[in-house]
Amino acid sequence: MIYLDNNATTRVPQAVVDAMLPYFSETYFNPSSMYEAAKISAAALEDARARIAKFLGAAKSSEILFTSCATESNSTAIRGAAMAVPARRHIITSDVEHPAVLALCEELEREGYEIDRIGVNERGELDMRAFVKALRPGKTLMVSIMYANNETGVIFPIERLAEITKATDPKILFHTDATQAAGKLSIDLSGALKNVDFLSFSGHKIHAPKGVGVLYMRTGAACRPFLYGGHQERGRRGGTENIPYIVGLAKACELAEASLAKRDRMTALRDRLEAGLKKIPYVVINGEGADRLPNTTNAAFHYIEGEGILYQLDLEGICASSGSACTSGSLDPSHVLRAMHVPFTAVHGSIRFSLSEETTEADIDRVIEVMPRIVDNLRKLSPYWDNEKQMPRDMALIVEKN
Amino acid sequence: MIYLDNNATTRVPQAVVDAMLPYFSETYFNPSSMYEAAKISAAALEDARARIAKFLGAAKSSEILFTSCATESNSTAIRGAAMAVPARRHIITSDVEHPAVLALCEELEREGYEIDRIGVNERGELDMRAFVKALRPGKTLMVSIMYANNETGVIFPIERLAEITKATDPKILFHTDATQAAGKLSIDLSGALKNVDFLSFSGHKIHAPKGVGVLYMRTGAACRPFLYGGHQERGRRGGTENIPYIVGLAKACELAEASLAKRDRMTALRDRLEAGLKKIPYVVINGEGADRLPNTTNAAFHYIEGEGILYQLDLEGICASSGSACTSGSLDPSHVLRAMHVPFTAVHGSIRFSLSEETTEADIDRVIEVMPRIVDNLRKLSPYWDNEKQMPRDMALIVEKN
Repeated sequence: MIYLDNNATTRVPQAVVDAMLPYFSETYFNPSSMYEAAKISAAALEDARARIAKFLGAAKSSEILFTSCATESNSTAIRGAAMAVPARRHIITSDVEHPAVLALCEELEREGYEIDRIGVNERGELDMRAFVKALRPGKTLMVSIMYANNETGVIFPIERLAEITKATDPKILFHTDATQAAGKLSIDLSGALKNVDFLSFSGHKIHAPKGVGVLYMRTGAACRPFLYGGHQERGRRGGTENIPYIVGLAKACELAEASLAKRDRMTALRDRLEAGLKKIPYVVINGEGADRLPNTTNAAFHYIEGEGILYQLDLEGICASSGSACTSGSLDPSHVLRAMHVPFTAVHGSIRFSLSEETTEADIDRVIEVMPRIVDNLRKLSPYWDNEKQMPRDMALIVEKN
Repeated sequence: MIYLDNNATTRVPQAVVDAMLPYFSETYFNPSSMYEAAKISAAALEDARARIAKFLGAAKSSEILFTSCATESNSTAIRGAAMAVPARRHIITSDVEHPAVLALCEELEREGYEIDRIGVNERGELDMRAFVKALRPGKTLMVSIMYANNETGVIFPIERLAEITKATDPKILFHTDATQAAGKLSIDLSGALKNVDFLSFSGHKIHAPKGVGVLYMRTGAACRPFLYGGHQERGRRGGTENIPYIVGLAKACELAEASLAKRDRMTALRDRLEAGLKKIPYVVINGEGADRLPNTTNAAFHYIEGEGILYQLDLEGICASSGSACTSGSLDPSHVLRAMHVPFTAVHGSIRFSLSEETTEADIDRVIEVMPRIVDNLRKLSPYWDNEKQMPRDMALIVEKN
């Protein structure tokens, strides 16, 4: 099997499983308990916290809050800020956020919040002018803009956005959903990202299991708890801590840190894939030309349906996706590609291939080998494709007209 | 080591670890993805859901919502109901809830909700008369009362409470935090508990790992999502599903179901422990005489400090606790014991021993063996204890007076 859906979720390697295993049946104690054995659980928790703080360049371990997923991290940052600063009722986000932020902002809108959603250009890049205009000193509660897009891999200039935000009004809170960026880009919250107040990511995109997330919370940033309960996480999140996954996440962060050094290899594989795909007629890389993650290719195969491509790839043992796993099952075309004004003939035929450090050259070559035949066969069935002339019907019309 | 703190958390047995392991590195796919391999993840998720529905006697699998912990389940039920029925602003709970419900109700009070907290008698039993009086037809949003107390094991008459609630006003939502009851008592949401709308519990109290919880949501019960995000859990909870833990929880529920048949053995061990402890002078079982869980003993050792007992037990390799792990670290005496009006001389010296099906007769006998010496030594240091007369100093004074 060739797994190219690492933006949906990743495989947990043995090293991470091995790190977790002792915490199920041996050191299974509640870290809040008083006896010596429980102190080993508590020490494992704090050791993991320190390692993850280091991974993010956080000044203090106490700035790391463990959650159950990036969705919870995003809700904690946004809801927590809203509760902490009720006088401010304006939030800025983007058109291309993950559903975790999109759906929450829609809910906040129903509750009376004013939401400004910043658009993107045809390469998926944020409209900086609109962003600057949207900031309202004294009024804006929070900016919540993703670090890198899950569907296209396009990277937003978070450093610059946070800097502009704080220069406009230092009391506007800046949050970024870094779920796709963590482990793929260097993150330094004491350096380049020193103006970011909150940063979310989840374990399962970086080879830790599904069910653990992190919210970085800068010391002093206004936030109230989202999950009320016990005194865990310094009173910021009730619920007994998921020690095995937290320890696994710390290990996964270290592996990700090490793999950052091998980013050139991943970029080369990604470029090889894109070069191969572009040899097929009427194939466009969505977001091409923009600053992008090293692991993500979103390719538009004009005039065919993505579902058909995915089905054929699946028969070849290749796992890829159309859009986000969190929106799959929906027949609506991707909100990200629509925001980029990807043409109608391409938006339905866009496929995301997302690599990991486990991806090999042979995997990529196999995709390049099978795709032309898959595309050919599907185009033969497509009502938009003129089989005889081997070109799109509308293109053929243009040629005939000239 | 003798582990008698199973109300704080439990050991994950090998059978549960084995059930989870394939979902980390082999079937690690996002259940929302479209390819065949991901359908195995999705099938595992739905199979687990069906097995847990059966464990609870739920009519439909779709009534089972997976969360990250009981705290999240409680928040989802209470916050979700509050969002769904904003016109009702009155909530009834008890004085002795877990911090997950207590702290959330305090927050709701700050937001303008009216909270009625029903008290308990000296055995820890709910004041039924006060409960009935508190219900306000047309006004009460929800009753949220725990099934069994985490500190004393005292069981509340949930069947009767839910019945009274619905007879008063069928639109009052009934929620119970069954975190300590699940796996220790038979739960039948289609039978005895047919008037319960929401029921919460967590995996880690029944030998699944920390980081997975369940909220039973009766079909048609008013509730809005708590975690907004993707379409997961039928749009009721965003976030990629924690398949390994969910599969592990289904396995743990089956093991718990099987162990219910061996409840008499656990009750006998618990009774043996209590009989042994009561041979020590001035020892009282908190909640004695009330309907209690088969695994929980909360013993008051008058005239000494619980911390001292725990420290001495720890030296003997025995793990127990004073109060809830979720409040430990706090120097305040237990809110549960205070609500029961446990006398001052006992509230600080109360220790919880909580058994599991892994507890042996030898474990219990060891506790009975070491406790008299521990109590003796600590009483010798206690300012409230008269060493020569082998009785409490204030009692000695009383005796002298007569």
